[in-house]
Amino acid sequence: MKDFDLKHYTLLVNEVLESYLPNTNEFPPTIHEAMRYSVLAGGKRLRPSLAIVAHEMFGGNALSFLPAAAAIELIHTYSLIHDDLPAMDNDDYRRGKPTNHKVFGEAIAILAGDALLTLAFELMTHKLVDQYSATRILQSTAELAFASGTNGLIGGQVVDILSESAEVSNPPQTLDYIHAHKTGSLITASLRIGAILAGATKQELASVTRYAAYLGLGFQIRDDILDVVGNEKDLGKTAGKDQQAKKLTYVSVYGLQGAEERARKCYESCLTTLDALGGSEPLRQAADLCINRTK
Amino acid sequence: MKDFDLKHYTLLVNEVLESYLPNTNEFPPTIHEAMRYSVLAGGKRLRPSLAIVAHEMFGGNALSFLPAAAAIELIHTYSLIHDDLPAMDNDDYRRGKPTNHKVFGEAIAILAGDALLTLAFELMTHKLVDQYSATRILQSTAELAFASGTNGLIGGQVVDILSESAEVSNPPQTLDYIHAHKTGSLITASLRIGAILAGATKQELASVTRYAAYLGLGFQIRDDILDVVGNEKDLGKTAGKDQQAKKLTYVSVYGLQGAEERARKCYESCLTTLDALGGSEPLRQAADLCINRTK
Repeated sequence: MKDFDLKHYTLLVNEVLESYLPNTNEFPPTIHEAMRYSVLAGGKRLRPSLAIVAHEMFGGNALSFLPAAAAIELIHTYSLIHDDLPAMDNDDYRRGKPTNHKVFGEAIAILAGDALLTLAFELMTHKLVDQYSATRILQSTAELAFASGTNGLIGGQVVDILSESAEVSNPPQTLDYIHAHKTGSLITASLRIGAILAGATKQELASVTRYAAYLGLGFQIRDDILDVVGNEKDLGKTAGKDQQAKKLTYVSVYGLQGAEERARKCYESCLTTLDALGGSEPLRQAADLCINRTK
Repeated sequence: MKDFDLKHYTLLVNEVLESYLPNTNEFPPTIHEAMRYSVLAGGKRLRPSLAIVAHEMFGGNALSFLPAAAAIELIHTYSLIHDDLPAMDNDDYRRGKPTNHKVFGEAIAILAGDALLTLAFELMTHKLVDQYSATRILQSTAELAFASGTNGLIGGQVVDILSESAEVSNPPQTLDYIHAHKTGSLITASLRIGAILAGATKQELASVTRYAAYLGLGFQIRDDILDVVGNEKDLGKTAGKDQQAKKLTYVSVYGLQGAEERARKCYESCLTTLDALGGSEPLRQAADLCINRTK
């Protein structure tokens, strides 16, 4: 049985991202530099790796699937670039480097985000056609669009931003909404797209979706914990920033111990959900890596 | 033979936009209000109308095609919202109303643009599946993504922005690049998507593409002329703004008479290109309406 060898997947995804991003000698160079700057700044490539694992688990081939893996990471990166903008979270550093708008200016940063989002859909609709049935590609692309929209990623970001400027009436509920959408949607879509393109059954898809919900939540709770107990070098971003910004986090709502307890429950639920699926060892390891990580 | 009845198409497109945009009672309401505000602010719906005409011309059915028409207009609107941002053109008015960021703030305006772009791809991949073959849908969606990316719409906007802050070494060439990409790409994609989904042949597509290039250019030249000789009420935006901003326009590069002459040539080339196609009377009328308009 295969392991969830994140380093191996990271390398694969980095290679395909490098090959699909426009070169900086293509006109107009500035926008291509800005796109490459943020996408190739590093990162664990967690979402595309989860997608590949799910794809392999249902009999798919990792290499054929790489355009979809790349598309998922482009959407993740676009959302980070736009989130970091002065009008949003106003962040100066990301993955240990100055944020996109700090280097290229706001206008180009906005357009680089737009371009990555657009390129993601170009990859999905143009680069998978020889390997998968058109119907499955359409279904996967529609899932990616839905997960990225106002019922997913963007919805989470909207509520996150609005919750910072106003009194939140129900903090636990708001917090769950933000993260189920801002983090959870794309993680869920990644796993589902991997499964859909490999031809998973409806029942298998349902199990994957339940697993993804616990995984996304557990991942985010760990993120909030690490913002408090982690160190900046490991995180590649300003630690303690959530507290400073008085952000709603799992630690601010439930305390450190309550957050740890919740993370543990998410991990256990991930494992329980996987009992229904054969060959799920890599996803068990992924849950361990996402929820029990120390950086 | 059908006329290019723009008013009829405008109504059709408005109806379908209204039905596909999320309602303002859907959570989170703010982003849906912002999306609806800009999309439903009016506008001629020229691009989707051209797409419908091309679709009908090659035997397609306008009603089946409406999700694609809506997607095209959503991409056009997203690009306007982002272009108007303070970091870009910093415009206060659009279609006679305050721009999106003036009403909802910059963060929500950026996210509303993102959400419209995303929704466009959701419509393309999710709402056409019962009416067209999956292969044709994929091809059309890939064309839309390509035309919206750094080889299209975004490329044009990047060069437009950079040309304002730096001395342009070759104004006519830069001007042509900006408009072939910023305006031309989406107009071309609209006509091509209409034709592709209706099953046009390669040769027919080639003729449509040539026509689209002249139409897009002629449309933009007329826009530049009207910015100088038109009045604000007709335009729904600040007239003379290009001149004030010392923008590169067809009037600033070729003078008013030179621009008029170029517009006339574009119109004639449109008609010549259509000689190769049967049933092209509506596209002749569209060329007249786009290039010879007075507002």
